[in-house]
Amino acid sequence: MKKVSIKDIAQMAGVASSTVSFVLNGKARKMRISETVEKRVIEVARNAGYYPNQLAISLRTGKSKTLGLIVENIGNPFFATLAKTIEEEAEQYGYRVVYCSTENNASKGKELINMLSQRQVDGYLITPAPHMEDDIQQLVQLNRPVVLIDRYLPSVDVSHVLVNNTEAVSQGMAHLFDRGYKEIGFVTVDLDVIQMEERLDGYLGALSKQGIRLNKDIILKIPYTHQRDEAVELIAALLKDNPQLDALFFATNYLAILGLESINRLKMAIPQDIAVISFDDHDIFRIYPPGITSIQQPVEAIAKKAVALLMEQCESTESKLSTTEVELTAKLIVRGST
Amino acid sequence: MKKVSIKDIAQMAGVASSTVSFVLNGKARKMRISETVEKRVIEVARNAGYYPNQLAISLRTGKSKTLGLIVENIGNPFFATLAKTIEEEAEQYGYRVVYCSTENNASKGKELINMLSQRQVDGYLITPAPHMEDDIQQLVQLNRPVVLIDRYLPSVDVSHVLVNNTEAVSQGMAHLFDRGYKEIGFVTVDLDVIQMEERLDGYLGALSKQGIRLNKDIILKIPYTHQRDEAVELIAALLKDNPQLDALFFATNYLAILGLESINRLKMAIPQDIAVISFDDHDIFRIYPPGITSIQQPVEAIAKKAVALLMEQCESTESKLSTTEVELTAKLIVRGST
Repeated sequence: MKKVSIKDIAQMAGVASSTVSFVLNGKARKMRISETVEKRVIEVARNAGYYPNQLAISLRTGKSKTLGLIVENIGNPFFATLAKTIEEEAEQYGYRVVYCSTENNASKGKELINMLSQRQVDGYLITPAPHMEDDIQQLVQLNRPVVLIDRYLPSVDVSHVLVNNTEAVSQGMAHLFDRGYKEIGFVTVDLDVIQMEERLDGYLGALSKQGIRLNKDIILKIPYTHQRDEAVELIAALLKDNPQLDALFFATNYLAILGLESINRLKMAIPQDIAVISFDDHDIFRIYPPGITSIQQPVEAIAKKAVALLMEQCESTESKLSTTEVELTAKLIVRGST
Repeated sequence: MKKVSIKDIAQMAGVASSTVSFVLNGKARKMRISETVEKRVIEVARNAGYYPNQLAISLRTGKSKTLGLIVENIGNPFFATLAKTIEEEAEQYGYRVVYCSTENNASKGKELINMLSQRQVDGYLITPAPHMEDDIQQLVQLNRPVVLIDRYLPSVDVSHVLVNNTEAVSQGMAHLFDRGYKEIGFVTVDLDVIQMEERLDGYLGALSKQGIRLNKDIILKIPYTHQRDEAVELIAALLKDNPQLDALFFATNYLAILGLESINRLKMAIPQDIAVISFDDHDIFRIYPPGITSIQQPVEAIAKKAVALLMEQCESTESKLSTTEVELTAKLIVRGST
């Protein structure tokens, strides 16, 4: 690779070398360089394959301009989309992102945090697995920039961005009641994380508000480490054992997809035999006939807010980082299944 | 976090400290330690939250036990599943994986390689974006472990693992001809990468073998940076302008999903009005009525083989790394759409 210098880029972009230097060091805003010029310089630098000696910069500034993102499972479309959006968003601030999955295993989460620390990332975006409290607490104590996403840890005082899970499920339940459904089963995952508890709370609260007596038989908790076929069987059994059910509320999109398979196998019609609503949208729900009603998380807003909060922490000169809790609103997308 | 020592682990696992040390340094096989003991030690170490001082190990061994995975777009289920499987597979060798997306942008790919190098990863798994030849060549010249996945670069001599794209499309076309379809449109992406060229070659070869004259009007190349609605419109227009079409072959799963939306909008029935087949399977295809026929890539086999090849390179003591080219066979999954 031929080396391209800041001077070369300045010439190509028709600006002063100092301007290029400010832009590439993320100081365009501070130095009141116009967005047009900033954009042009970045474009020219990128096309020319300019790459500053990051190691030298890291040594000088103590910053690596890299963020670490730890998700639950990159194989799940919600986390994959979240990762992609965070990657795009961080790029706007001149940061790169490396990511990895915990698969909800706290030991793996701990290892990943250690690995990222040793790779010297500047900040962490984490969807914490159960029992990661101590590891997150340690990052907070070390005053490392951290933002939790999708869930939070009640015992740890750290910034987080998530949706109002309880409220969103209540809204979905209200919609089902409005449409005349009364016998509503709830399918969730057997996992001790706050956002799943909040979703169940939303279900229980909605029943109680309607004066409906709780029937524990129609709440199905599927093991997180289920095999696909096992889960499909469990949901089918729920439907067979409870013929009075007229609707199913799935607490996550991957459970709803398994549920669609169960309903298919039983040759039940949606929504005539059983109505379906899912937390988290999915490509499938838009096109699967008759369309599956879902609660859509604002993935883009979550990504933007989480990155912005982390950037504030990364750039902060305060001796103690402050904590911000953001709760965004999910959106009910009504389709043919309810 | 309380520090746990190798001695503590040895006591908990009921083995000698040297055994623990060998296992945790990935020398169990070499030192003929049984798999049962190895597994127990790893389990105990993990539960105890033991984490070796990786930076110290890196300095001593020059190895970070971290692999860098660069995919096209983590938001695409094929790459997300691939990433997840590679992560699981690498873990078996005691390696962690960090990943990032190029979005088919060569400059971004170059930056990511640089970033990973400076974070000192031991090896690279890369789905190269167009025009990344020079960057990959440079890694090869530096004798860095590299394995390409999903595609290769004809001009660069480097190990790769992919499926036989041409052969797989031929097989899909033969299936369509067998079922009596004759007017088969091809929907692909406007992107200069070898695996897409090979898929198109498979289509063209199959037509020519059948003595069918090429009609360029029924080959649709959708821009990679399409907006969803634009693409749906383009596919709908292809169908409207060519009422003679009795089948559509989609060169990727995300194009097929857009195609299903187009077919929906036109209120055409699958397979009565139009048959559908897609390269790459997807959750949607299994459950979307009447089931969508697809060509399934052996994601697990690709991941296993790619990691195994990379591990050989990482552990190699040869002065020049050897090159291995692996072509795996994709599998035709026939469903109701053809």
